[in-house]
Amino acid sequence: MQEISFGSDNHSAVHPLVMAALSEVNQGFCFGYGDDPYTEEVIALLRDSFGGNCDIWMVMTGTGANVISLQALLHSFNAVLCPHTSHINVDECGAVQKFTQARLLPINTPDGKLSPELIEPALGGRGDQHHSQKKIVSISQSTEYGTAYSLDELSALAEYVHSKGLLLHIDGARLANAAAYLGVSLKAMTSEVGADVVSFGGTKNGMMFGEAIISFVPELTQNILYFRKQASQLYSKARFIAAQYKAYLQDELWRSCALHANRMASLLAQELDQFPQVRVTQKVQANAVFVILPPEWIKALQPRYMFYMWDEVIHEARLMCSFTTREEHISTLIRDIRTLSECRENGIIQNLQ
Amino acid sequence: MQEISFGSDNHSAVHPLVMAALSEVNQGFCFGYGDDPYTEEVIALLRDSFGGNCDIWMVMTGTGANVISLQALLHSFNAVLCPHTSHINVDECGAVQKFTQARLLPINTPDGKLSPELIEPALGGRGDQHHSQKKIVSISQSTEYGTAYSLDELSALAEYVHSKGLLLHIDGARLANAAAYLGVSLKAMTSEVGADVVSFGGTKNGMMFGEAIISFVPELTQNILYFRKQASQLYSKARFIAAQYKAYLQDELWRSCALHANRMASLLAQELDQFPQVRVTQKVQANAVFVILPPEWIKALQPRYMFYMWDEVIHEARLMCSFTTREEHISTLIRDIRTLSECRENGIIQNLQ
Amino acid sequence: MQEISFGSDNHSAVHPLVMAALSEVNQGFCFGYGDDPYTEEVIALLRDSFGGNCDIWMVMTGTGANVISLQALLHSFNAVLCPHTSHINVDECGAVQKFTQARLLPINTPDGKLSPELIEPALGGRGDQHHSQKKIVSISQSTEYGTAYSLDELSALAEYVHSKGLLLHIDGARLANAAAYLGVSLKAMTSEVGADVVSFGGTKNGMMFGEAIISFVPELTQNILYFRKQASQLYSKARFIAAQYKAYLQDELWRSCALHANRMASLLAQELDQFPQVRVTQKVQANAVFVILPPEWIKALQPRYMFYMWDEVIHEARLMCSFTTREEHISTLIRDIRTLSECRENGIIQNLQ
Amino acid sequence: MQEISFGSDNHSAVHPLVMAALSEVNQGFCFGYGDDPYTEEVIALLRDSFGGNCDIWMVMTGTGANVISLQALLHSFNAVLCPHTSHINVDECGAVQKFTQARLLPINTPDGKLSPELIEPALGGRGDQHHSQKKIVSISQSTEYGTAYSLDELSALAEYVHSKGLLLHIDGARLANAAAYLGVSLKAMTSEVGADVVSFGGTKNGMMFGEAIISFVPELTQNILYFRKQASQLYSKARFIAAQYKAYLQDELWRSCALHANRMASLLAQELDQFPQVRVTQKVQANAVFVILPPEWIKALQPRYMFYMWDEVIHEARLMCSFTTREEHISTLIRDIRTLSECRENGIIQNLQ
Repeated sequence: MQEISFGSDNHSAVHPLVMAALSEVNQGFCFGYGDDPYTEEVIALLRDSFGGNCDIWMVMTGTGANVISLQALLHSFNAVLCPHTSHINVDECGAVQKFTQARLLPINTPDGKLSPELIEPALGGRGDQHHSQKKIVSISQSTEYGTAYSLDELSALAEYVHSKGLLLHIDGARLANAAAYLGVSLKAMTSEVGADVVSFGGTKNGMMFGEAIISFVPELTQNILYFRKQASQLYSKARFIAAQYKAYLQDELWRSCALHANRMASLLAQELDQFPQVRVTQKVQANAVFVILPPEWIKALQPRYMFYMWDEVIHEARLMCSFTTREEHISTLIRDIRTLSECRENGIIQNLQ
Repeated sequence: MQEISFGSDNHSAVHPLVMAALSEVNQGFCFGYGDDPYTEEVIALLRDSFGGNCDIWMVMTGTGANVISLQALLHSFNAVLCPHTSHINVDECGAVQKFTQARLLPINTPDGKLSPELIEPALGGRGDQHHSQKKIVSISQSTEYGTAYSLDELSALAEYVHSKGLLLHIDGARLANAAAYLGVSLKAMTSEVGADVVSFGGTKNGMMFGEAIISFVPELTQNILYFRKQASQLYSKARFIAAQYKAYLQDELWRSCALHANRMASLLAQELDQFPQVRVTQKVQANAVFVILPPEWIKALQPRYMFYMWDEVIHEARLMCSFTTREEHISTLIRDIRTLSECRENGIIQNLQ
Repeated sequence: MQEISFGSDNHSAVHPLVMAALSEVNQGFCFGYGDDPYTEEVIALLRDSFGGNCDIWMVMTGTGANVISLQALLHSFNAVLCPHTSHINVDECGAVQKFTQARLLPINTPDGKLSPELIEPALGGRGDQHHSQKKIVSISQSTEYGTAYSLDELSALAEYVHSKGLLLHIDGARLANAAAYLGVSLKAMTSEVGADVVSFGGTKNGMMFGEAIISFVPELTQNILYFRKQASQLYSKARFIAAQYKAYLQDELWRSCALHANRMASLLAQELDQFPQVRVTQKVQANAVFVILPPEWIKALQPRYMFYMWDEVIHEARLMCSFTTREEHISTLIRDIRTLSECRENGIIQNLQ
Repeated sequence: MQEISFGSDNHSAVHPLVMAALSEVNQGFCFGYGDDPYTEEVIALLRDSFGGNCDIWMVMTGTGANVISLQALLHSFNAVLCPHTSHINVDECGAVQKFTQARLLPINTPDGKLSPELIEPALGGRGDQHHSQKKIVSISQSTEYGTAYSLDELSALAEYVHSKGLLLHIDGARLANAAAYLGVSLKAMTSEVGADVVSFGGTKNGMMFGEAIISFVPELTQNILYFRKQASQLYSKARFIAAQYKAYLQDELWRSCALHANRMASLLAQELDQFPQVRVTQKVQANAVFVILPPEWIKALQPRYMFYMWDEVIHEARLMCSFTTREEHISTLIRDIRTLSECRENGIIQNLQ
């Protein structure tokens, strides 16, 4: 156990209301594999949140949600365009390739966000049997850089993607953080802007486990039923995901958790800004702060505050906040940084512990 | 929610001690993906239980445990010999084929158990490039028929399998029930008889989710680390599986839960035996009762007691017991059957409800 | 080189007319990958032969034709019903599993032929997420046992298959032999009976290499273009397959080659019939003779006549004839068998050579 | 049929000596699938050419050779580093992903060639379960840009690759052109520099079909036997590949064909150099000329000379020469270009035909 961690929003515990919901459903017999009343109820709730006209499936992990969503829309000869920084490209050990046998074609972006201008040059080869056929544009909202697409950006992207005969997938592991940042509903950011398939993650923002896949193209995704089981992502005691999501949706718990996490990230960025040796490299919109630090500071801070390096070459670290990050965690970090800042002048850097 | 269910052992809730363990670890920050002290501790405990010289990984689902175990040992041109009734063959929607691209070669068995005699005719084609190369024998302990291999049967099987240059995989979704039936330790039934890779399920016997893969051939399975993540089975908030397993191992909670479930199945079979219209078709050793019932009884009983048909043609039903099955569930069922038995003589069968 | 072989119809050389056709197109530059006038012309000829309303692709190997055909019609969660003896099940080292990640569900048959009665019990589980979803019935015409479906059998099978929402695939590696036996056109045996996707092999019956895939469900198979390339089965110098098929179709060369091969098999079976120690086990309709021989005869004959054992346990051998099998090959074999037959009485068996 | 083509070296016919060899073996029965004396003989010849200590398999297509080679060395969680321009990355419709389920990580290069400096930044993530594990560096010799690695470059690359625990794969679809350019033996360019697995193509340089896989790490590639069949790349009438390779090796036919093709490319580049409106963009070492032409020239020349655009944006065309390219093809092209060059001054461009 770590006293303070800026390592990941999944370093956090489970929200008490979610834990209470788990206990509450823990009685009696219940059908498995999603054929239970809890699942039925929560899917109806989720459907409302996402605009009504959609199909929904529960899965175990975020990687599971991504690969099943993509699998349902892809043939093996297809390709997926995605930002170079996307979780499916960088952090899933090739899961998309494993499940779909299709290709990821990553595109470099300055801020983790795709745009029609960035996609345009990557199209081509359509109808040519020698080339993987582009089929999906996959984005993350919020992005792995802690940035968020505006509603206008999403609409423009979806329109462009559809005009090219492609589909828009949104990895929503941190969808809550984006909705909280934009101050909009879940449906405003998905069905209303023209997304095709979206995941809505809970694990990074207060739940214990469980992710939801939401499809706005039900006619294209009817086989998810089978892909999910074949992908080993069908949960037997499904009521325990359903109960979590119910608590998560109740009074928009997801939003208050995400708002807090975002606020902590803003505060952290603001505090970091006072140090001339520090440079925040991305806009802080969701719950991540990307920051270039002096290498000796990194060495001193990492054991105590547990964070990951994003780019070792330029000494860029990623500091993640979550619904359990507290102001005192930030002030403690800032205090240590101030000490380092002063040490620097003396040329003496030691481990703060 | 179902008042009484003999549908599956996963229709049960979570054991209170497991639920308490989940609450207990629900505080503070913690490294994800298994790099946490809880996981470290529980893996050490599991390692002891399984005889010491083994590698262990946690995954999300039983299907996940099976496909990752097999993936680690197979090339796509290989084949797995298994009983026709095995979960990997019947109930996983082709997950093994999806993950491994290899073949299952199912073998008919009278009681869900393989033996050297049953395997022998299925070997052959070794070294012939036209034929899938047999590599693994996969069995379930206890079996899908509720039977259990004796230690002698397991030893003989493992010895035979190894003598043919093959490996022995055990799907242990109900390993606890077998150990409880045999009255032996987990290691006596796995490492000591010569098993190569085993799964040790918790979900059907008191846990909320989580399965363990135990490898006694660490040199062959070192890539499970990557296969697990690529299979979307790496859990981020790993402490919540670890906590469950710790509770599950404490004072052999798994054994007391399994003993109870097995006892309920024995009692149920014994009670059923009094009706001449009823035939129990398999030895009741673990927690399942397979029984042929008059078709009109099935129609009357199924809505109230929720059970699955195993073989529609011969009217064979499967009645599963679990750690939450109570004697009164059985006596209620038997009472209704008695009513039916008497109704039958009157030629009047109606839904008992 | 073998003086005489009954091992396989692919032990034969290439028909002189096919070889001449290869030489004839061997001049000048030509577009690759099928965008050449030779391919265009021969596809038009093939389309006529198969009834007009079909799409056609050339591939390199028979296994390639099978896997690409199935790939185009399957999701990974699907299953293919096929005879236990089928080439896709027995002889392709798991190629179908590799390419499609779906399952083969083999059905035991007495003569290599499926029927509605044999298929019926294997259906079931439709719509159940735990089970692979049956999608295709795949048969071989002629079968691996040298038998052939009649037109009536094919029609009845296709009708049944379609009534169950399935598709009918025909592995036509020896389609020519079946058409020759039945005395019907290629279209009578495929499009007119309701086949969905068929392969039309050339390699076993006079060509050097090359197979054709014919789809009567073009709307379902439009992606074969990409699957073929991704399967490494797109031939660059495509004119050299086209030229062979043109020669093969010219004056129905395929039929005269197949008729000869079939005649040789009939003659061989008839001659074998005179020996009481010998039992022909299958109807000889195409170009194969399955025969049980005394084990010591097998030992004596195999080195000289090169044939394969089909079932070692019952001493059943497979003797294949081809367009290059000559009457003297048969009379030589029969002469040796007669010698063996007489030796037997003397108790002296030696290698005949 | 095209009168003149600079489209691809596979637009050429088959060398007369290869065609003669095909006719020569076209008699009598012969074992299939490579168990024939022709294959045995030619594999011995190839083994000598490649330095003796290697295993060799014949396959049908160049894509087949690549995917089987990579499959033998990869797990699905691995990654292959390759130049962005490589055939496996650009032109195989995702075949590597299909067969291996692993990833390609393409690296931008100025000239189609990788170096330790270019590879270094792409390494990293080793041992981290979230990231695909790099396993192979795959290069093409000669490259898709018509450039060739020197022996020193190859040695340095192999040494670097091995020092990182990786393996070196060479796509040798045009290995002959590289050996001809460097004036070295096949073994000097492969086994002697430390390559691990290499393909040696024939189809683009005089053969009709057939490619060879040569492994210098036999202990790692013993399963190619099965992967080849499962990949549908095992040829039944194997003598017809063997015969071609024998002719191709005889008196180094491959070298004289390649030398001629290379010479034609050099000549073409030299002739193009006289036009100030034309820019040859890559060193002309093997048989390709990459050239930027005025767009209106491209429009005028493409129908007559059949060539492909490499980069539409900068008007870069690829002109390929082969063993059938003749000096008069080049002089005709240059004459037309001269006309265009003069037309330009007059402002009048028309289709030359």
